[in-house]
Amino acid sequence: MPIVTIQQFPRDLAQKRELAQRITQAFVEVYGASEESVQVFFNEVDGESWAKAGTMGCDRSPARG
Amino acid sequence: MPIVTIQQFPRDLAQKRELAQRITQAFVEVYGASEESVQVFFNEVDGESWAKAGTMGCDRSPARG
Amino acid sequence: MPIVTIQQFPRDLAQKRELAQRITQAFVEVYGASEESVQVFFNEVDGESWAKAGTMGCDRSPARG
Amino acid sequence: MPIVTIQQFPRDLAQKRELAQRITQAFVEVYGASEESVQVFFNEVDGESWAKAGTMGCDRSPARG
Amino acid sequence: MPIVTIQQFPRDLAQKRELAQRITQAFVEVYGASEESVQVFFNEVDGESWAKAGTMGCDRSPARG
Amino acid sequence: MPIVTIQQFPRDLAQKRELAQRITQAFVEVYGASEESVQVFFNEVDGESWAKAGTMGCDRSPARG
Repeated sequence: MPIVTIQQFPRDLAQKRELAQRITQAFVEVYGASEESVQVFFNEVDGESWAKAGTMGCDRSPARG
Repeated sequence: MPIVTIQQFPRDLAQKRELAQRITQAFVEVYGASEESVQVFFNEVDGESWAKAGTMGCDRSPARG
Repeated sequence: MPIVTIQQFPRDLAQKRELAQRITQAFVEVYGASEESVQVFFNEVDGESWAKAGTMGCDRSPARG
Repeated sequence: MPIVTIQQFPRDLAQKRELAQRITQAFVEVYGASEESVQVFFNEVDGESWAKAGTMGCDRSPARG
Repeated sequence: MPIVTIQQFPRDLAQKRELAQRITQAFVEVYGASEESVQVFFNEVDGESWAKAGTMGCDRSPARG
Repeated sequence: MPIVTIQQFPRDLAQKRELAQRITQAFVEVYGASEESVQVFFNEVDGESWAKAGTMGCDRSPARG
């Protein structure tokens, strides 16, 4: 522990790489956790597997995000 | 919140669209939640990533569901 | 399957009872799933275990929900 | 219940088949659970969707596992 | 990895202790995973936070399990 | 989205407050996500609900963490 699971839209590897570093660093500095104890899982979902306000992501105008 | 995560067999978009609407409507009417607050995630798994009673889905006869 | 996990604020039993019925009914009518196959888990979190926009729930004014 | 969700690297079907049997058997013998009540979900993630110690799986040398 | 999350009814510590050993042993023998890599999380829910077939656990007769 | 779920040992509110800010800030700066879109859930587990290497947390010497 800690185990971090992120449900998110698909992102490119470079962004996930940077995000994982920053999240791990936050646990090390705020909790004093060891780096090796922090694991981050990216569950990427697209607009056909996510809905908000009753509307599928793929049916939402980009503006409504 | 509320965040709804559904582990299910793959379904077509039209069914997921209708299900997301009905689930969101249930939260609005029963909890008085705002539509915008309700998110639904569909985690679709196939028979090679799910087992019941010790038997992989892909090895189960359709009748046993 | 389907297994439904809901992350939500604590609610009273009567509301959860009605919500579980409506969600199960939606799966039966939209997916043709059997009632017995639908399970719903309520993961209730309070304001000290949830944050939005970088602010803990317990620190957010009710209006910001 | 019980619902078992496993976050793991991809594995071949034969390994998952055997693992599902052994996990189900453990619930039956230790908890006295019925076989039919035990479901196992395999969430397989690759090195581009998992990080440990701030390093993406795909960037870690095999030795560091 | 692997990270195992179990949604289950509350059980006493001795049962969870034995179950964790057997699940870990299964990963070691079937996947060749190192013992240290296997983590098991027990998410215990009671009958007021779980429903099956549209009925809350606390409203189900014990026979229907 | 993104929805962040953290499985961790119990921590005090001040630490969770700071961690939530830093994680949210990381999403805003790395992904360009809006602050309002980021939610963080803390699933706190104690040593009687978590095991590593087949040993319950409550049975592990502190040194083995």
